[in-house]
Amino acid sequence: MKAKEVIQLLEEVRKTRPLIHNITNTVVTNFTANGLLSMGVSPVMANAPEEAAEMAKAANALVINIGTLNREQVKAMRMAGIAANEKGIPVVLDPVGAGATAYRTETALALLEELDVALIRANAGEMAALLGESGTVQGVDASGEADNSKIAKEASRRFEAIAAVTGVEDAVAHQGEVFIVQNGHTLLTKVTGTGCLLSSVAASFLTVQHSAGAVAAALAYYGAAAEIAGSLTTREGPGSFQIELLNALHATQEMDLRHYIRVKQES
Amino acid sequence: MKAKEVIQLLEEVRKTRPLIHNITNTVVTNFTANGLLSMGVSPVMANAPEEAAEMAKAANALVINIGTLNREQVKAMRMAGIAANEKGIPVVLDPVGAGATAYRTETALALLEELDVALIRANAGEMAALLGESGTVQGVDASGEADNSKIAKEASRRFEAIAAVTGVEDAVAHQGEVFIVQNGHTLLTKVTGTGCLLSSVAASFLTVQHSAGAVAAALAYYGAAAEIAGSLTTREGPGSFQIELLNALHATQEMDLRHYIRVKQES
Amino acid sequence: MKAKEVIQLLEEVRKTRPLIHNITNTVVTNFTANGLLSMGVSPVMANAPEEAAEMAKAANALVINIGTLNREQVKAMRMAGIAANEKGIPVVLDPVGAGATAYRTETALALLEELDVALIRANAGEMAALLGESGTVQGVDASGEADNSKIAKEASRRFEAIAAVTGVEDAVAHQGEVFIVQNGHTLLTKVTGTGCLLSSVAASFLTVQHSAGAVAAALAYYGAAAEIAGSLTTREGPGSFQIELLNALHATQEMDLRHYIRVKQES
Repeated sequence: MKAKEVIQLLEEVRKTRPLIHNITNTVVTNFTANGLLSMGVSPVMANAPEEAAEMAKAANALVINIGTLNREQVKAMRMAGIAANEKGIPVVLDPVGAGATAYRTETALALLEELDVALIRANAGEMAALLGESGTVQGVDASGEADNSKIAKEASRRFEAIAAVTGVEDAVAHQGEVFIVQNGHTLLTKVTGTGCLLSSVAASFLTVQHSAGAVAAALAYYGAAAEIAGSLTTREGPGSFQIELLNALHATQEMDLRHYIRVKQES
Repeated sequence: MKAKEVIQLLEEVRKTRPLIHNITNTVVTNFTANGLLSMGVSPVMANAPEEAAEMAKAANALVINIGTLNREQVKAMRMAGIAANEKGIPVVLDPVGAGATAYRTETALALLEELDVALIRANAGEMAALLGESGTVQGVDASGEADNSKIAKEASRRFEAIAAVTGVEDAVAHQGEVFIVQNGHTLLTKVTGTGCLLSSVAASFLTVQHSAGAVAAALAYYGAAAEIAGSLTTREGPGSFQIELLNALHATQEMDLRHYIRVKQES
Repeated sequence: MKAKEVIQLLEEVRKTRPLIHNITNTVVTNFTANGLLSMGVSPVMANAPEEAAEMAKAANALVINIGTLNREQVKAMRMAGIAANEKGIPVVLDPVGAGATAYRTETALALLEELDVALIRANAGEMAALLGESGTVQGVDASGEADNSKIAKEASRRFEAIAAVTGVEDAVAHQGEVFIVQNGHTLLTKVTGTGCLLSSVAASFLTVQHSAGAVAAALAYYGAAAEIAGSLTTREGPGSFQIELLNALHATQEMDLRHYIRVKQES
């Protein structure tokens, strides 16, 4: 994939300024909203069963994140998901901590069963847990040593969705296509919610093109922004990196992206 | 309104260090608390029906924000609001996303019906929704093209409260008085919760003087802090702006404010 | 206590990279997770009764923080606490706002009654409230003028736990031992959640050594990081301090700590 295609998709996202409805965990709500505002789209959060479906109907994409799930929120996720499917907008599932508890794994699998999910974005450990493979979980940010590409292909087949497995190298698979994204920065693992925000960034790209390529472009844009942020803050550390990541998502212009984007397509 | 009056009110707020009880949304709790601490007042958050009324009775003002409302929280809002009314402390309502879903609009209107609200702080779209006028909502941060002054006057009459409609220019109306505040910065629209924090800042000013003028002063102080923050971060972006806004709320001294404050009174 | 001992404990924590399960308030979830990631340990948040016990069993320590408690969360705290006791991992209680409402004081006391708590970390006003002494509360960040050492000793005896009372000077007491930690910075009082994060940092140290000395070491490390952050941001203010505190927790190396650590043991 050429940098030019990533840039065109980003510009299309910014021009249409989609409304992204996030039902997400309490740890990352603020960072997710700020990341989306920085990149140039509109976030909205609405968790209550009383309004989740109505909000989803007003949105251009729905992101479901189970990072601090509870009964009422899962109810809201279902209602919003059904409304999103009816409207035909993309639904993105971020199965945070799948494998860490039975409640998370089972909730994620039930949502995949009930809803038409466009994209699952997870790390290798979480995706393996959904596939029923064994894995150890260290916090929710861990990535296994497994082959991201293999896991993504298997998850895409099993759940009939685009599957993005992120880690040192990201893999995006769907219907025979596999993209490998080599962007990113190690400091992403030192800031909470960077994966959650990435899921919402990918949802934004899906509003302009429903394809594995659009997801790969989102990952490359995000990873490139992280590299720019990382180059500015290696000496300072994770606090400054978090701020510069927001700045980079906002400012990243064609010239910067051209320099960073590294996306390969597996043949 | 002269800069001197704004400064005197701010100094009075800082001297008395009011305790502001916030029942607010999960997206902005951290930013709201940090903003209040930075400006020199004491925030407290308490959302449970079991303690909301008792906490309100210990506070100097109550802020009700419906940004991620749910059944239990609305119950707590009612109980805290009644307790605040009994004690006679100001109640501020921030109807985040009114108009976006029926649940939000109806909850905001029900709270306005049941409680004696001192101030409603909203953008034009939200306030118009409360007034029953049509409007489109793009996220919760949108502001319509409507005349803020006209909307504020109408809302103040209808709800018998000070009404502050914020946007590029802010309007504050109550009982024949109308203030226009021309402070602010475009980067405020790129950081989530800047409106929510503003509602809590206005609540702080209401603890020292119950008037439309005190609210206008709060808006001018906040807008001036945003201008100072914006002047430091235009090149960096929204991440850095958010940090510098907290710094500016903390540090803004008489000399800086004098330079920025722009508040007119409509005749 | 020598700086060398603090450094050895910190290195041991970083080497073992414990998983810290936090059931905490909605204001500080993000800051707590980022602080723990910065210092080099793994945070996990899980509040639902459906999974709290299972998550605690997977963790190396459990932190219970009542800053925005509600019925469901208290249920989860109990279940997680019992599971943590069964597994034998340390349970840390942060009784945020005890004394501010009856619900908080009673919940904290009930948890202390039901669970085997390894450490209570609080400010003087909160700890005094648990001990039934009168005190005024200004927000949740206030510290009284009382003698922290005296309160810590009394709390340790009464609740049969390590007791850490933090303020300008921190006191840590347990079974005849009392440590006084003189590290810290005044800007810590201008950022929300700095006490909450400290409780989770202390939990991390308890995973490598169950002693009052390990808690004192955690407080000294954290206070030293705050001093480093404060020295970089006195002119900027609380916004920048918050970021530099995360940076300092990440970067603080042996040489820096050696220069700052000030821990005395009462004879």
